[in-house]
Amino acid sequence: MTTPSRRELANAIRFLAIDAVQAANSGHPGMPMGMADIAEVLWNDYLQHNPANPRWFNRDRFVLSNGHGSMLQYALLHLSGYDLSIDDLKRFRQLESKTPGHPENFMTCGVETTTGPLGQGLANAVGFALAEKLLAQRFNRPEFEVVDHRTWVFLGDGCLMEGVSHEAASLAGTWGLHKLVAFWDDNHISIDGDVHGWFTDDTPARFEAYGWNVIRGVDGHDATEIKTAIETALKSADKPTLVCCRTTIGFGSPNKAGKESSHGAPLGKDEIALTREALNWPYAPFEIPQAIYDGWKVGDVGKVREIQWNDLFDAYAQRHPDAAAELTRRSHAELPESFRTDALNYAMKLQAEGPNVASRKASQMAIEAFAPLLPELVGGSADLAHSNLTLWKGSKSVASDDADANYIYFGVREFAMTAISNGLALHGGFIPYDATFLVFSDYARNAVRMSALMGAHAIHVYTHDSIGLGEDGPTHQPVEHLASLRYIPNNDVWRPCDAVESAMAWKCAIERKDGPSCLVFSRQTLPHQPRDEGQLLDIARGGYVLKDSVGTPEVILIATGSEVGLAMGAAAQLGDKVRVVSMPSTDVFDRQDAAYRESVLPKSVRKRVAIEAGTADFWRKYVGLDGAVVGMERYGASAPIEALMPHFGFTVERVVGVAKAL
Amino acid sequence: MTTPSRRELANAIRFLAIDAVQAANSGHPGMPMGMADIAEVLWNDYLQHNPANPRWFNRDRFVLSNGHGSMLQYALLHLSGYDLSIDDLKRFRQLESKTPGHPENFMTCGVETTTGPLGQGLANAVGFALAEKLLAQRFNRPEFEVVDHRTWVFLGDGCLMEGVSHEAASLAGTWGLHKLVAFWDDNHISIDGDVHGWFTDDTPARFEAYGWNVIRGVDGHDATEIKTAIETALKSADKPTLVCCRTTIGFGSPNKAGKESSHGAPLGKDEIALTREALNWPYAPFEIPQAIYDGWKVGDVGKVREIQWNDLFDAYAQRHPDAAAELTRRSHAELPESFRTDALNYAMKLQAEGPNVASRKASQMAIEAFAPLLPELVGGSADLAHSNLTLWKGSKSVASDDADANYIYFGVREFAMTAISNGLALHGGFIPYDATFLVFSDYARNAVRMSALMGAHAIHVYTHDSIGLGEDGPTHQPVEHLASLRYIPNNDVWRPCDAVESAMAWKCAIERKDGPSCLVFSRQTLPHQPRDEGQLLDIARGGYVLKDSVGTPEVILIATGSEVGLAMGAAAQLGDKVRVVSMPSTDVFDRQDAAYRESVLPKSVRKRVAIEAGTADFWRKYVGLDGAVVGMERYGASAPIEALMPHFGFTVERVVGVAKAL
Repeated sequence: MTTPSRRELANAIRFLAIDAVQAANSGHPGMPMGMADIAEVLWNDYLQHNPANPRWFNRDRFVLSNGHGSMLQYALLHLSGYDLSIDDLKRFRQLESKTPGHPENFMTCGVETTTGPLGQGLANAVGFALAEKLLAQRFNRPEFEVVDHRTWVFLGDGCLMEGVSHEAASLAGTWGLHKLVAFWDDNHISIDGDVHGWFTDDTPARFEAYGWNVIRGVDGHDATEIKTAIETALKSADKPTLVCCRTTIGFGSPNKAGKESSHGAPLGKDEIALTREALNWPYAPFEIPQAIYDGWKVGDVGKVREIQWNDLFDAYAQRHPDAAAELTRRSHAELPESFRTDALNYAMKLQAEGPNVASRKASQMAIEAFAPLLPELVGGSADLAHSNLTLWKGSKSVASDDADANYIYFGVREFAMTAISNGLALHGGFIPYDATFLVFSDYARNAVRMSALMGAHAIHVYTHDSIGLGEDGPTHQPVEHLASLRYIPNNDVWRPCDAVESAMAWKCAIERKDGPSCLVFSRQTLPHQPRDEGQLLDIARGGYVLKDSVGTPEVILIATGSEVGLAMGAAAQLGDKVRVVSMPSTDVFDRQDAAYRESVLPKSVRKRVAIEAGTADFWRKYVGLDGAVVGMERYGASAPIEALMPHFGFTVERVVGVAKAL
Repeated sequence: MTTPSRRELANAIRFLAIDAVQAANSGHPGMPMGMADIAEVLWNDYLQHNPANPRWFNRDRFVLSNGHGSMLQYALLHLSGYDLSIDDLKRFRQLESKTPGHPENFMTCGVETTTGPLGQGLANAVGFALAEKLLAQRFNRPEFEVVDHRTWVFLGDGCLMEGVSHEAASLAGTWGLHKLVAFWDDNHISIDGDVHGWFTDDTPARFEAYGWNVIRGVDGHDATEIKTAIETALKSADKPTLVCCRTTIGFGSPNKAGKESSHGAPLGKDEIALTREALNWPYAPFEIPQAIYDGWKVGDVGKVREIQWNDLFDAYAQRHPDAAAELTRRSHAELPESFRTDALNYAMKLQAEGPNVASRKASQMAIEAFAPLLPELVGGSADLAHSNLTLWKGSKSVASDDADANYIYFGVREFAMTAISNGLALHGGFIPYDATFLVFSDYARNAVRMSALMGAHAIHVYTHDSIGLGEDGPTHQPVEHLASLRYIPNNDVWRPCDAVESAMAWKCAIERKDGPSCLVFSRQTLPHQPRDEGQLLDIARGGYVLKDSVGTPEVILIATGSEVGLAMGAAAQLGDKVRVVSMPSTDVFDRQDAAYRESVLPKSVRKRVAIEAGTADFWRKYVGLDGAVVGMERYGASAPIEALMPHFGFTVERVVGVAKAL
């Protein structure tokens, strides 16, 4: 082979995808075959990255929102020189390989975010682009554009059909994220066939309505047209860009190109042979000629780019040492040195003061106390700022170009909000928080799951946490949400009982680096609870003895949030053989060692009552078949809290009765 | 008062809303004050309904997608003569009143659907309009337009920001639902203030991109402009219509009009007095002059309309007796007489034949068997038809005008899909089903909850129900979803273990009228299980003894779906003191009487092992603290099923070991 053509460079992607899917006997060849030419141009001519250091902070971010085409990304990483070998590609979709079925940020270096659930990659990308904008505003100085990178997204018809694409694109337009460029794989095909029966949007017009720069009618198989489009996108000064690329799914396959049959299954041996012939690719499966590797030289360029940036950063550090140190700290996800102590002192102060406040108010107090210590804290609410109490004195809208911009008016967009938070967290330099009513965590649910799956350090604030919100009624009253969120693996759910637990929950969520936390707060006022210092510290263990019995307990009352007050009231009536356990986070409690758990909930004590205004059955894991639960078994109702709580059995008398009946 | 002006008729709405919110000290006056003029024109001049018979089948459907403005709807119902008294209005937001905080279809006659969770009302309305279109196609005959009504939706900025509005509007455009008319309350205000900071879409252009007829720039406080807009909408022959109404939130309040302060809190005594003055409304709270009531005469017109329709229908029944009988049957939600028997016979035939198939395939077989019996069965998949196996021989796209149109290509739009199903179910005449992968029930989660809260007879089909789906990996592998869906009150979740249970699950879901069912199916093949007739019938009880022990069981193995085979294999090794309980639906089992439950799971037997490839903790409610669970405690992984199942401990050996260790 002489110097390979662009098409040949792209064909390397195509055949790696074709052959890996065939070897796995499972996967999606059609999309990589369709987007290979676009990817080749983007990665070879434009993407600012360094395959030798996938964590270089100022790299461009690349997001494959149509993540089923994972082999496209793996082929790109391999060909560009990332640590992903041909053997890794051969193990596509095998247990513990670096090439799982969908791109997973925790399995593969160079994968920025986990994709597959459609539409969310675009929203993650909006988070990446917002992160870049905010860091640039804060850290760049004249002559020192130390933060200056783009976010590139590939997306398909499926992403565009999903509602989250609407929410994310709308915000990107409002924020004018001009360094965000999305390539639409306009191939007219989704899994059920030609999309004309179910996808008739005028997508370019739709994105123009969001305030995007739209480049129509690009031939996604013509490198020149692709380059021209990208050059146009690079010139956009105030709008994100959508490049509409007309492509052929399964490009190159004589019998499956342009058909849904190329989408989600191996092409098959015969068709692969025909495709090899059609594309003039005589090489064996997983064989890539050296000339092709040589053609993918971008890796070396990337090294140079990072070296140049390192020089720039060194000069910046000379001139602006504080800013450089701060950017380094934030990009390494290190908390300010004194944060742990300061935060603990704050909680101790609260313990001494003993305020009786709604825990949503306590959350706001915690934000007010912690945010000045943490410029990396950025967040907001889905149009419920004054209900979620997410605003604080230093809040400044991210829609501005203020260096301290830190507050996000997400609008009524819970799903994109959460996926954007994930993007902010994965980008680095931020600890994002988002907020809505607990019941509307439903709208964001898969993005919460993605936070947890990806280990994204995002904080999801959910107020109005039970029937206690009152008059808005069952559409707004969560019942199953506490349990359901707890069941998401690697998701820490906190439901604090007073201002002190609220502060400690925020502290734990901020300090937790390997996953998200959901902080769940009440609308109504909650009474302060007495604690000694040991008890206060044990809040961080998720569950602890708030009030102990004299001697071995006869009965243990376990409660969270607004029901801890009830448990304490009941204990006062039940006498001194009763222990009260406050359990703000079952997830965190379950991670404690067996001895600690035994010390809180001794196996021998079977008379246990759990009290929580949420799904009763969840608590069987702590009370077993012999205990009892005062919980919810049906939907709430619209009424003032004073009527609701007794109506649904949340009274001291009921708890006392249930405990006595054991 | 002489003959009241239109403005005065509308002011009656305003003050009922103002005064009810003030009396409740809670609620949302701003929207009713802003949309009162639009509502007055629509209800008095156009809405085809009969307040004396809210269930008249051919009535227009009215949906308040911005449901927080519930007092608008209650005022309309009261003034129009529905069974909603002034005393009911005085009890706004009180326990068990007919006027809860948000409109609830199960509390108030005349409320078609429960709204409040934003955007879903629009999607429900798309379902209503689709139902009308399909019934008209099937039942109308020359000279007999017995199905001919419109769907009117009110919606606000919040609805339009939500992603589900994108999904729903896109489908309405594709389907050309020209009898759907939406009024956008374009008041520039959402809870966080002026929307320019977070909602800058060009909404009219966006809806034109969906293929809607858009009427721009209507003054929402000018009855003449509103009428003109509606007349234009009525002429639309092939597109849904969006009427963009420029309104003032809190219209009439001297100090709060146009401000978010009027949105979600009582105006306050002083401001109410000022508003009375400004709008020249000298009447006491809840006092409506007779002249105003007389002005709201639409109720009498409605009676006439229904009488005329009844005459039409009588004539239709003469000419087309079979069609009339069928429409009557379907509109009364009666199953065909022989359905129960036919369906049971089908299950018995399967039991005799004993096919080993994936339960998703068994689901398709059930659809193939039942759909020909049930022309009211309409549904489809979110672009996964060939994975969910929702197509059957008689499938015909609803995008066509075929009289038998019954299959919905939803595109990749899980949330709108589910909310549209809810609309189809609430409209009447249909049993809708929808389908996606189980993990993507997340995307639709709040609509599933709304199915259950509203008691909508919808069937949600979820395939690829565990790590057993294999290579697609953790983004596609549900873990917590089974438990989370079961925790939604009034939601019946079924996870059948073979073709027979799959058929019975479909049968139960079809026969259940007061709520939704989620039918959860495997990707992989499942072995047929032996049963006698009693066992087969007991499937419908949610849980039953599939293989009994000799004498009192020493150990009970409880399993669902793909893990029932494992339990049977383990029981074979563990000997004859082991009972196997198949528990396809915990929800249904929990509703059985205590004696039956005791007969299946005797309290005295504490050695219990639950086996399910989903959240382990869920099963503590059945196995307690003394039992064990073979379940999932973390995310799955990308690999072939043959590698995954042993990796995560789903083997006969492990079950045997766990049981022996008890």
